Amino acid sequence: MAHLLSPSCSLDISSSSKLYCKQSIQGSKVIPSSFMLQTFNAPIGRLVLQGKRLQRSSCIVRATTLPISQEAKTQPSSGSHDTSSGPSERKKVMVIGGDGYCGWATALHLSNKNYEVSIVDSLVRRLFDHQLGLDSLTPISSIHNRIRRWKSETGKNIQLYIGDICDFEFLSETFESFKPDAVVHFGEQRSAPYSMIDRCRAVFTQKNNVIGTLNVLFAIKEFGEDCHLVKLGTMGEYGTPNIDIEEGYITITHNGRTDTLPYPKQASSFYHLSKVHDSNNIAFTCKAWGIRATDLNQGVVYGVRTDETEMHEELCNRFDYDGVFGTALNRFCVQAAVGHPLTVYGKGGQTRGYLDIRDTIQCVELAIANPAQRGEFRVFNQFTEQFSVNELASLVTKAGEKLGLKVQTLSVPNPRVEAEEHYYNAKHTKLVELGLKPHLLSDSLIDSLLNFAIKFEDRIDAKQIMPSVFWRKIGVKPKTVAA
Amino acid sequence: MAHLLSPSCSLDISSSSKLYCKQSIQGSKVIPSSFMLQTFNAPIGRLVLQGKRLQRSSCIVRATTLPISQEAKTQPSSGSHDTSSGPSERKKVMVIGGDGYCGWATALHLSNKNYEVSIVDSLVRRLFDHQLGLDSLTPISSIHNRIRRWKSETGKNIQLYIGDICDFEFLSETFESFKPDAVVHFGEQRSAPYSMIDRCRAVFTQKNNVIGTLNVLFAIKEFGEDCHLVKLGTMGEYGTPNIDIEEGYITITHNGRTDTLPYPKQASSFYHLSKVHDSNNIAFTCKAWGIRATDLNQGVVYGVRTDETEMHEELCNRFDYDGVFGTALNRFCVQAAVGHPLTVYGKGGQTRGYLDIRDTIQCVELAIANPAQRGEFRVFNQFTEQFSVNELASLVTKAGEKLGLKVQTLSVPNPRVEAEEHYYNAKHTKLVELGLKPHLLSDSLIDSLLNFAIKFEDRIDAKQIMPSVFWRKIGVKPKTVAA
Repeated sequence: MAHLLSPSCSLDISSSSKLYCKQSIQGSKVIPSSFMLQTFNAPIGRLVLQGKRLQRSSCIVRATTLPISQEAKTQPSSGSHDTSSGPSERKKVMVIGGDGYCGWATALHLSNKNYEVSIVDSLVRRLFDHQLGLDSLTPISSIHNRIRRWKSETGKNIQLYIGDICDFEFLSETFESFKPDAVVHFGEQRSAPYSMIDRCRAVFTQKNNVIGTLNVLFAIKEFGEDCHLVKLGTMGEYGTPNIDIEEGYITITHNGRTDTLPYPKQASSFYHLSKVHDSNNIAFTCKAWGIRATDLNQGVVYGVRTDETEMHEELCNRFDYDGVFGTALNRFCVQAAVGHPLTVYGKGGQTRGYLDIRDTIQCVELAIANPAQRGEFRVFNQFTEQFSVNELASLVTKAGEKLGLKVQTLSVPNPRVEAEEHYYNAKHTKLVELGLKPHLLSDSLIDSLLNFAIKFEDRIDAKQIMPSVFWRKIGVKPKTVAA
Repeated sequence: MAHLLSPSCSLDISSSSKLYCKQSIQGSKVIPSSFMLQTFNAPIGRLVLQGKRLQRSSCIVRATTLPISQEAKTQPSSGSHDTSSGPSERKKVMVIGGDGYCGWATALHLSNKNYEVSIVDSLVRRLFDHQLGLDSLTPISSIHNRIRRWKSETGKNIQLYIGDICDFEFLSETFESFKPDAVVHFGEQRSAPYSMIDRCRAVFTQKNNVIGTLNVLFAIKEFGEDCHLVKLGTMGEYGTPNIDIEEGYITITHNGRTDTLPYPKQASSFYHLSKVHDSNNIAFTCKAWGIRATDLNQGVVYGVRTDETEMHEELCNRFDYDGVFGTALNRFCVQAAVGHPLTVYGKGGQTRGYLDIRDTIQCVELAIANPAQRGEFRVFNQFTEQFSVNELASLVTKAGEKLGLKVQTLSVPNPRVEAEEHYYNAKHTKLVELGLKPHLLSDSLIDSLLNFAIKFEDRIDAKQIMPSVFWRKIGVKPKTVAA
């Protein structure tokens, strides 16, 4: 069978809005020419949405900035009517990356809470899965079917803009058309291992994330200076310092003088670094242009279910357990379900902040409802509990045993470069002060994680479980996954 | 007459090595199509070198990775022989950005000190001048003539690779061909105002600088892990905190625990931010891959003359006094020479570190001679004296009066967003400990600055002196300079 597409550098040029372009693919790989860049990316959305493999022959495709929900309006309504108040009274929230794991849950939650919601997404996350031979444990519908199902279940519209925010012409059109009061920006390459696969993916990650965010900042300055940017950062920006981690800033007394300064960052992958770059860029634009921004330094998110995604199987969220996009916790649950030993990387003392996806959507809602001031760069640490990898393994073992599973643990060489035994104490009080009511892992583990793994056991691909990306082995040649 | 070329986004794709490509320019502007990106950049070097304006008709151009000095070998030698020891005994230093202000002085100095030197440069700095209608006060020769003149004056070869380090194929060839022991990386867009002209230049600056440096790191990892990276950062990365600025790291005691962490950064332009991003990326690769790196957080450099550039007028260095690439000190000298009041931005309390270009080249030589350890991310603050803008104005006024000039000072609205009155005390002892013998501004001002301004008074373009870029006014439309 054909090789999977080489991802190569062909990801780094964005689609143009309303552009008709011709796609040429020769043999089983994309032609590695810069002239291909433009033509390759525009069709991502449609190709994936149609659920077809890329064809070897030429085809005509179209990237769109016309909200899909407007197109759908001409079709007969299959559900109840939107009973919410008129658009002029509702707060408009643009969710960039709204087809992804956190983005989809957030978009539905905000729509359910009567915000007027649009999703902006290039759908490239789905392409990554195709290219790397990965798949969500849970079956997920196309973004179009998701949005149509949401409409039919609730009567609520979500507008959809398919395109790449690195393409400023496209992004401008979404801003001018939707006029957001707040932008929630999840639209970044969000995997540390992905950014460490090869040089091309490292460069893609930083270019995509940094330029995308710069464009969002310029769009806010140009089209709606009062718009509140809610940007997803990561707790990984801080690294593992030997002192308490504060929320964004630290007051330092040094040689008899005192100042409150940005908390020092020590990121440990090209992905985590891209988030540090974003934070620095955003902080500057708050100061220079008066942008209002909230940086949500999020911990590791777990869980599949939210009230909204539960409404119908077509609204189901993704669950990643593979070595690239999966987290240790998800991997452990899948391993427990299939009787594979839990694979702890190295000594297992790596400690991080964690939160339930139901708290992610709560936190974003709280940030939007309590916006930052003009010129304020506000930083929240968005997690609810801290665990070491060994503690996670122990929790999964105990929960597994309750379900009658026999769970063992195995230490494997750590593919990453990170401290495996370290101090870790990160503050996370600001969102609680705004009203966050945390869900705890001990309550969710069996219901929202292990039971999903067991339910979809037949879809588990054991090849995806083990680490496939090694921090020290990253090379300059594009890495292709063989069939 | 024709408009100057719109720089637009056409700068963001690099040239390919050994690529023949066809340049198409319609009317008076470059076609703003992505298909032009590749074709537009390849020819930059040659077009500028030939000293011609870009033609409106198509032309065939070539980017090269063949060292020009090798091409030149077939021509009769016009100077003395290279009397240094064989290449195998000499340390090889690649100077990226070696055609620029600091890079040119450094390349000559290292060559003079018997290092085997190559210059890697896309020559895009010369294109910026063409596009913005700017020019160096001092006339400068083409890079080819500079290198030939150096050979004829000293008998020493400097190898030349013309291309863009954002193009990894090109960069790989330079590494495989030259096999550097050390890389001095000046090859970045280095003007804060340039990065604040419009969205395209902001994006270009961060993409160019961050991706170029990522590529250099990957090249070192792939082709010479022991190679020492000497990277030019900027004192501007630190901003103006209300505590003493240390050299790269600060030891913090917080809630009873202590750690030494990266010094917090507060950059104040997209350019300065790009250097912060670089520093973070480099620090990570030192830890993850064992890269050896020295980050030189340089102050504002002044002065034209070095021992080497003095040897012949064709070796003369550039002197920028314009509102985009010039510094306050250079601008003041030019203003004094033509009887224009010295234009102080705002209150004039802005304090920064300064150094003579003769100290830049000393510092780089010291860093190379005393390399960082494997895995070490070493940071030096590279400046010798601190001055406020008001102090600079006062020094220029006094020096001007000694030369019989009548000098006045005028406060103009500050185009930047920066503190105009602040605490500033930055450490700079590490390079002194390695042997740096500073030149002081008071000794150089008349000789190396004011006299140059007076000598080239006829070349002064008064239109270039006033600020033309405003931090708060940056927009999303590409800005073009009218004739």
